Amino acid sequence: MGLTLDITMSLDGFVAGPNPTLEEPLGAGGELLHEWIVRLASWRRYHGLEGGETGADDELAEEIVASIGAHIMGRRMFSGGAGPWEQDPRADGWWGEDPPFHHQVFVLTHHEREPLTKEGGTTFHFVTDGIEAALERATAAAGELDVGISGGAAVAQQYLRAGLIDTMNIHVTPLLLGGGTRLFDEQGGEPIGLELVRAVQGHGVVHLTFTRPS
Amino acid sequence: MGLTLDITMSLDGFVAGPNPTLEEPLGAGGELLHEWIVRLASWRRYHGLEGGETGADDELAEEIVASIGAHIMGRRMFSGGAGPWEQDPRADGWWGEDPPFHHQVFVLTHHEREPLTKEGGTTFHFVTDGIEAALERATAAAGELDVGISGGAAVAQQYLRAGLIDTMNIHVTPLLLGGGTRLFDEQGGEPIGLELVRAVQGHGVVHLTFTRPS
Repeated sequence: MGLTLDITMSLDGFVAGPNPTLEEPLGAGGELLHEWIVRLASWRRYHGLEGGETGADDELAEEIVASIGAHIMGRRMFSGGAGPWEQDPRADGWWGEDPPFHHQVFVLTHHEREPLTKEGGTTFHFVTDGIEAALERATAAAGELDVGISGGAAVAQQYLRAGLIDTMNIHVTPLLLGGGTRLFDEQGGEPIGLELVRAVQGHGVVHLTFTRPS
Repeated sequence: MGLTLDITMSLDGFVAGPNPTLEEPLGAGGELLHEWIVRLASWRRYHGLEGGETGADDELAEEIVASIGAHIMGRRMFSGGAGPWEQDPRADGWWGEDPPFHHQVFVLTHHEREPLTKEGGTTFHFVTDGIEAALERATAAAGELDVGISGGAAVAQQYLRAGLIDTMNIHVTPLLLGGGTRLFDEQGGEPIGLELVRAVQGHGVVHLTFTRPS
């Protein structure tokens, strides 16, 4: 029913480290951002793995995932940063045969392409007519649930600038990356006041939720 | 016994807004950063005012203030940003006759100058031989207590880069300033992992405390 940004940011504001490569698509140190989530039981389950940590972080991550009925992502996130898509716009991306979404995913791109259906309920749709069209299609696909954006920063910033994000779940990690891709660039304009909904201290992470004031 | 950074930052990473002037020394929208603190009973008391809000934010702010026995600040924070110091290095700054510190304050500057003693126990000392000398003098003045840095960003960054900050109290406000002075610039180098000590949800602010891993 709304658009939710769900992303992990270092204390110094970066959602990826500097110098992304094929080997390090999240840039130098970028993997450190996600240490808090990859060890969780819910993350492992969505990725077809067993085991993992339960508790407050896991419950919160699970709650967010359960609230999302469709995703929007950028071309780079689909292809894995500096991945194969850079060379071949028909490449399948790095999400494998059973991607962790299990719902419709709308990829913002300039390349028209037929939908790509994977195992486990994930279909990638390629949207070439802009962020509002993608949001409209994703909203219809999500039904009663929210539409999620998990990155990359460029896509998040486009939706932020357009004032289209209703809820932000920002997971702040105790890490200074010292460089890379910022979530919030210098947008200019008037200051925007948000409403702080909750702050939860997790294990090596703080979960912050903000909404636009109603 | 250690060096504590205590500063308020917008969600998008700014500790002051863009375009500081004499009328708006914290830049456009910069005053919004400190709405959470100026209404507190402890802040008002330190500034010679009565009344104000009590509760969790006030107790936390009071606890931090009580832990600090001396301060270090930059020349701009002493003079009030784009204040009189810019024109006259002998100006007294904007802190008035009874500044809210009530202890020794060490001002980093290039202008040698005699100490300036104010009412209420505050003396400003002017340190021209660098950040380590200022820290040494402030540590001696603080006795059993910590040395505090509250800004500006340039001073905080110098101490961060030098690895001299032991504790960071970062008060994150639900605000997108869209520009201004960042607390964390692109320092480069290896990622620095911090330890998250606590995260407290306040009234229009989240209080985060980090230390360097021991």
